[in-house]
Amino acid sequence: MRVAIVGATGAVGHELLKVLESSTLQFDELLLFASPRSAGTQLTFRGQPLTVQVTPEGAIDADVILASAGGSISKALAPKWVEGGAVVIDNSSAFRYDADVPLVVPEVNGDAALAHRGIIANPNCTTAIAVVAVAPIHRAYGVKRMIVSTYQATSGAGAKGMEELLDQTRAELNGEQAQASVFAHPIPFNVIPHIDAFQDNGYTKEEMKVAWETRKIIGDDSLKISCTAVRIPTLRTHSEAITLELERPATPEAVRELLAGAAGVEVRDNPEGKLYPMPLTASGKYDVEVGRIRESLVFDGGIDLFVAGDQLLKGAALNAVQIAEYLQQKGALKAKQRA
Amino acid sequence: MRVAIVGATGAVGHELLKVLESSTLQFDELLLFASPRSAGTQLTFRGQPLTVQVTPEGAIDADVILASAGGSISKALAPKWVEGGAVVIDNSSAFRYDADVPLVVPEVNGDAALAHRGIIANPNCTTAIAVVAVAPIHRAYGVKRMIVSTYQATSGAGAKGMEELLDQTRAELNGEQAQASVFAHPIPFNVIPHIDAFQDNGYTKEEMKVAWETRKIIGDDSLKISCTAVRIPTLRTHSEAITLELERPATPEAVRELLAGAAGVEVRDNPEGKLYPMPLTASGKYDVEVGRIRESLVFDGGIDLFVAGDQLLKGAALNAVQIAEYLQQKGALKAKQRA
Repeated sequence: MRVAIVGATGAVGHELLKVLESSTLQFDELLLFASPRSAGTQLTFRGQPLTVQVTPEGAIDADVILASAGGSISKALAPKWVEGGAVVIDNSSAFRYDADVPLVVPEVNGDAALAHRGIIANPNCTTAIAVVAVAPIHRAYGVKRMIVSTYQATSGAGAKGMEELLDQTRAELNGEQAQASVFAHPIPFNVIPHIDAFQDNGYTKEEMKVAWETRKIIGDDSLKISCTAVRIPTLRTHSEAITLELERPATPEAVRELLAGAAGVEVRDNPEGKLYPMPLTASGKYDVEVGRIRESLVFDGGIDLFVAGDQLLKGAALNAVQIAEYLQQKGALKAKQRA
Repeated sequence: MRVAIVGATGAVGHELLKVLESSTLQFDELLLFASPRSAGTQLTFRGQPLTVQVTPEGAIDADVILASAGGSISKALAPKWVEGGAVVIDNSSAFRYDADVPLVVPEVNGDAALAHRGIIANPNCTTAIAVVAVAPIHRAYGVKRMIVSTYQATSGAGAKGMEELLDQTRAELNGEQAQASVFAHPIPFNVIPHIDAFQDNGYTKEEMKVAWETRKIIGDDSLKISCTAVRIPTLRTHSEAITLELERPATPEAVRELLAGAAGVEVRDNPEGKLYPMPLTASGKYDVEVGRIRESLVFDGGIDLFVAGDQLLKGAALNAVQIAEYLQQKGALKAKQRA
């Protein structure tokens, strides 16, 4: 079994390597690809040096390709990779809304991955983090309305986003004026309610992704979702304040118990002990932290909660590897015959 | 006319002095008071040096007292100040929920101030900022439900909150571990969903203040409000994502026009031009920035919006001075006869 990472030198690529190191996925060989600028870079995997190669224009001789090099590269090359016999797990938004491409969070709809036709889409980071907490509540109580406000880290814009925050924070502390390059405005000590492009309806694409993708993963088109996506000066982990209207009334105690038994979730909800989800504690963690679970004051029997999840992990690299693991566990991942 | 500031050396006290410098409030003398630790400090007002005195245990010979020294000092001393003949405009939460104490945002319910019995309460900063945007919408369309997620600056915890963010950010950038003292956890590059004490219902007092105070200022007890209050690593200006369910359907265009004519509001809502509310532009500004005005995707005819307001100004010092200005304009502020 041969695994390839396309976009191996980016922020998500870096995490893909780390997650694969301790993954239960069985494979014999790992190939690393990136843009010509990054090709030649030496990376280490399980103690062995690996050289990053230039992403080829055509097929890649691998059984699973974890793609995280952006939408345009995926759009152009993924069909060729599929023709070459690989299963593509794509981290971009290029195929997420195609009816015949499954959009998968294994804890929620792993079975959808089995129906793939070569490409499986990895959801937007904000969606992946929200849905591990919301899907179990939806199954038990039926979510009717979902209002999400996000607190998104700079690494959502890749390694260069984190660098801009650190460099510009140093500059501001030295009395210099911060210059924005990655973000639309200076990010140190600021809040920017603008992630991805604005749509005709006044929402950003990031906000609409949460609505579109949550509905597709949960499999319920009637779910009403409104999101405000906001960039804040943190390095990694997206936090989200979520308000849920439910069909059947829930209590905070019941939801806490339900989520304590849910895969991919760590209930961190003890106000007395100052325990609640935070980037400080959720960063580097596989599970999504869920806390501040309380009765909604606007919906009878509804629930308000707060989540924090490492968006480079559950929001990207981890979820992609988990999809591959799931396929292999189900016997749906086969190595090609090679000479 | 004699004005006194109690708590003159704090973050809000500093802003009170600055706002009074350019205020239309007519007065002859300004007295400054603070704790024994800060007494003796020399401050400048309109080019003149003023010495901060120790807050006395009893009455203060002033006509208006702007109090911003914390709830326990207000609780203990404000009744004595009132007995001494002063009108007290109190920035603490000590009297906000008393039925006979008006809670006032002049643009919204200035007339309520006229019915005071000595004390007028200044609302919580988060509420004051939200309500200048929401009240005009409520009057025109009737708000039924309001869901608020906040992005609150460290200066909400006073000057020491800002210092902790700056000092600890420097420490983290130097590879040292940040130590929390003002906040419950390290704040640099972190998000803390915990402001003020937790209540029995799982909400913090800060969150409940938004519900209680918005209802009192708007004068509608049927309004359903749920808030998630979150501290983020910014210096000043609180931002808020707000979702509104309305009795009568609104359009974003109509709300934009309505708010363009509303006092205390600056509509900053041009996604194409990357114009939306942000701490970077709202800090130091008297008006509350309102933008991202769009049709709610969860409530038919409802509205989602984003606000950013300098919580040391509209959220505190400015609103207090505006209450005094309002009283004077209405002829409801009289100087005592002095020898």
